[in-house]
Amino acid sequence: MSDPRALSGYWLRDNCPCDECRDPGNGQKLFQITDLPADLAVRESTERDGHLAVLWTDGHRSRYPLTWLAAAAPDGHGPETAGRHPGDHRTEAAKRLWRAADFAAGLPEAHWDAHLADPAERAAVLRAVRHLGFAVLRGVPTTDRQVLAVARTFGHVRVTNYGELFDVRVEPDPNNLAFTSAAITPHTDNPYRDPVPTLQLLHCLENAAEGGDSGLVDGFAAADLLRTEAPEDFALLTRTPVPFAFRDRTTELHAERPLIETDALGRIREIRFNNRSIGTLRLPAADLDAFYAAYRRFAAIILRPELQLTFRLDPGDCLVFDNTRLLHARTAFDHDGHRHLQGCYADLDSLGSTLAVLDRHTEALDTLQELFEGEGAEEYLGEAVTQAEHMLQAAVLAHRDGAPPHLVAAALLHDVGHFHGAVTGAQLTAGTDNRHSHTGADWLARWFGPEVTEPIRLHVAAKRYLCAVEPAYRAGLSEASEHTLRVQGGPMAAEEAAAFAALPAAADAVAVRRWDDLAKTTDTDTPAFDHFRPLLADLLSAGAIGTHR
Amino acid sequence: MSDPRALSGYWLRDNCPCDECRDPGNGQKLFQITDLPADLAVRESTERDGHLAVLWTDGHRSRYPLTWLAAAAPDGHGPETAGRHPGDHRTEAAKRLWRAADFAAGLPEAHWDAHLADPAERAAVLRAVRHLGFAVLRGVPTTDRQVLAVARTFGHVRVTNYGELFDVRVEPDPNNLAFTSAAITPHTDNPYRDPVPTLQLLHCLENAAEGGDSGLVDGFAAADLLRTEAPEDFALLTRTPVPFAFRDRTTELHAERPLIETDALGRIREIRFNNRSIGTLRLPAADLDAFYAAYRRFAAIILRPELQLTFRLDPGDCLVFDNTRLLHARTAFDHDGHRHLQGCYADLDSLGSTLAVLDRHTEALDTLQELFEGEGAEEYLGEAVTQAEHMLQAAVLAHRDGAPPHLVAAALLHDVGHFHGAVTGAQLTAGTDNRHSHTGADWLARWFGPEVTEPIRLHVAAKRYLCAVEPAYRAGLSEASEHTLRVQGGPMAAEEAAAFAALPAAADAVAVRRWDDLAKTTDTDTPAFDHFRPLLADLLSAGAIGTHR
Repeated sequence: MSDPRALSGYWLRDNCPCDECRDPGNGQKLFQITDLPADLAVRESTERDGHLAVLWTDGHRSRYPLTWLAAAAPDGHGPETAGRHPGDHRTEAAKRLWRAADFAAGLPEAHWDAHLADPAERAAVLRAVRHLGFAVLRGVPTTDRQVLAVARTFGHVRVTNYGELFDVRVEPDPNNLAFTSAAITPHTDNPYRDPVPTLQLLHCLENAAEGGDSGLVDGFAAADLLRTEAPEDFALLTRTPVPFAFRDRTTELHAERPLIETDALGRIREIRFNNRSIGTLRLPAADLDAFYAAYRRFAAIILRPELQLTFRLDPGDCLVFDNTRLLHARTAFDHDGHRHLQGCYADLDSLGSTLAVLDRHTEALDTLQELFEGEGAEEYLGEAVTQAEHMLQAAVLAHRDGAPPHLVAAALLHDVGHFHGAVTGAQLTAGTDNRHSHTGADWLARWFGPEVTEPIRLHVAAKRYLCAVEPAYRAGLSEASEHTLRVQGGPMAAEEAAAFAALPAAADAVAVRRWDDLAKTTDTDTPAFDHFRPLLADLLSAGAIGTHR
Repeated sequence: MSDPRALSGYWLRDNCPCDECRDPGNGQKLFQITDLPADLAVRESTERDGHLAVLWTDGHRSRYPLTWLAAAAPDGHGPETAGRHPGDHRTEAAKRLWRAADFAAGLPEAHWDAHLADPAERAAVLRAVRHLGFAVLRGVPTTDRQVLAVARTFGHVRVTNYGELFDVRVEPDPNNLAFTSAAITPHTDNPYRDPVPTLQLLHCLENAAEGGDSGLVDGFAAADLLRTEAPEDFALLTRTPVPFAFRDRTTELHAERPLIETDALGRIREIRFNNRSIGTLRLPAADLDAFYAAYRRFAAIILRPELQLTFRLDPGDCLVFDNTRLLHARTAFDHDGHRHLQGCYADLDSLGSTLAVLDRHTEALDTLQELFEGEGAEEYLGEAVTQAEHMLQAAVLAHRDGAPPHLVAAALLHDVGHFHGAVTGAQLTAGTDNRHSHTGADWLARWFGPEVTEPIRLHVAAKRYLCAVEPAYRAGLSEASEHTLRVQGGPMAAEEAAAFAALPAAADAVAVRRWDDLAKTTDTDTPAFDHFRPLLADLLSAGAIGTHR
């Protein structure tokens, strides 16, 4: 793998990780593929320190971690292994196909409170939607427009001609059968839209009617059965564009897509199935006969009892499902009974993003916990407490002073820079400023926002600031802290102090500094890192949906 | 064509237009394809009165207009004619591919005021976006968030991780190269999203910088060139899923789609091109070499000068373009110069819907104009004015009385029911109630909302109501009107009058009725239908975006 002659040259160069080729901040490539010369080749390559160093014929130098090269091996896209790679999690390769009996022990579900409070629970709900195609949230407040709040826990609402949300109940002059009390057989929504909304939410506000139960069918499982039982019918449905249409006074939508869409590798990727809105196919009669035979066979598979998962939505239940995979249905209900759902659409891409970021957060919290319980248990630069005790005490003090969560977090994490980087705390005491405040802030910035990282970045400067403006402050420094003050640059000059005080995070940094200075006592019960984990999780979650701009 | 034995049976039955098979209100099918028996066949068929009548083996009867059967002929989806049918207007078959020189005489553009005021202008803008991939609106107010208002003239804003809208200007800590002053070569946006936003808007608020010009390339034209010059490279790019990725603190998006996406018939349908966000392909080295050779060839075609359309966006210009087809670019600009665009995303499906409804409106106005100028010039049931003069006078009276537009429209159109249907006005005078008020209201409801149609529906009832509650009113009726009153049922009984007065549209219907009664004078200058066309156009436009719920 590390023999560069066995690698594709342009591919290798396109993946050069150097700062000239990629923006270190956002990871985007800074060159165009056409910027690379026509005769690009490797001039020299050497393997050292776990890296492959390459000198290119155009003079550019690249350095690839060998671990990255190993991970970049072909992933089985070839015909013999097709279907095993999850890719972007949108094809059958990333799904667990199911029958109704698979949920005999219960549906994938979570309580709304847990979904909100516990990132792990939230991640489990989103993973179920991605993997199984659906999940049910229980105990969602039965208030008007609440379904939009549910959608916003993992994505952005997709507005359609039905509005931001739609009410599913009996209407006097329905523009859609959904708004009657009739039974509706399994279908996907909005097949006449392209792009089709990829997620649907249905929130039950009221269901006192006889009937009106909900049904789901795994359309990927049905398509998989069709492929096994009648491969030619399957192939025909993947290659026949079907016109779908919807029309009312203010809307006229048309889309032409196959009933079963496969990706470039032939994997099932999307199902559209809705006889109510199939328009008129215009094909030679023989092709129409073949299409209708395949379509009817697929429809019959979808109606097989073993594929029908039926359950009842009660008030407070919110069903979230993949509208590119699952077909949904409902039984007829008593016209006089009250049944009221509110629904909205959203998209799978943002759900996947939220899930990835939640997983990053879990990883972050696990990493921090390991650091606190590992390296953190070590001596703290000559103080009587360990590093972990010191930071935990600072957080306790911040909490006692009524500090907002982001400052409790800043106090808790203010010294993580000591844990990381080439320069250790020991070197700081030995006379090298490890700039641990900056190292820590930069490292934390991959997860936490500036409200947490900037007070940390400035907490060393805050000490130099306080020594300049509060003589009593300096007099109270511990011996070790007085020692590091000199290494860190000594008290600020007046001009520097004024500039510091003008920084937006200055006051927060000073607060963190004061807790820092006090957090060195041995006669206190210090809680474990676990105690602060929910607070950190909340802070991370708050920024998880695209609110960073 | 009318020999049913030459037609596909299930296809024919699936398209049965009867009220049992289709909801007369919304046109949705009321049956499932699996409801049709396994051995369905035509038992008998006859052709009469321009219809094919079919008796099916399951006893169902269908009646198909022969004009519909003729229009449903195969549309050339077969290999010999592939590419000629516009389908859902999303593939190359529905586009005009272009080179920069095609716009030497000017860009497809319109002034914002005209776009708002004139439905024909607005339709032309939307048609340009669909057909050419872009259009420029000039004179759009340079106010914050105005770009959202532009998007809402034809669709729904698609929210992404960049927010509801995004500011394109130099930012201190950019999460994307767009927010620097660097040149950006032609690319599509958000390739890491699936569904990708299919439309983008860029509204220029300020552009005082040196440089910072805009560029567009027709990606379909580039792909078409690749197909001609290197068919194997084209095919390779259509069947290689490419991983695109974007990651920052709050977002982590992945999508795997080919650079060139074709539909089931092999027609170019979607381009994704953005080297900044292409991730690491994991394929055997030989496949990577082939992919990179094809990718670089495609990239080189995209950069050909004859494909680069370059122009400058000035403050007030808003560019609207198809992000699944056009690549956009900008030249580098002077970092100190002020350049500020606001952008947002939307989708092509709603744009197509708005265009179709606008076209329907134009058709509606043309149809009404023809009726006023044709049939309308005929005698009005024994009155001294023509039907058209009568209705135009009613509208003039409504306008003089300060009536809101919807009531002016109701007055103008209140007797269109006389123009249509099997029972004519002549039959009404002969003693048959043609229920022209209901016929007219039902016919108009395909375009106009209830605020226009309900007063029309009730304007005959309003006469019977007024005769019941205002003796002086009845005394003032014209001779012809007194005659038709009897045919229409005579004055209302007290109970019926009370029920009428309680209807939401009763007051409006009474108002229309009074203008109706007065609009029979010969000594007035009656304007032509044209005079009221803008008022009707505005009323139609107001309901054109999905605001019907």
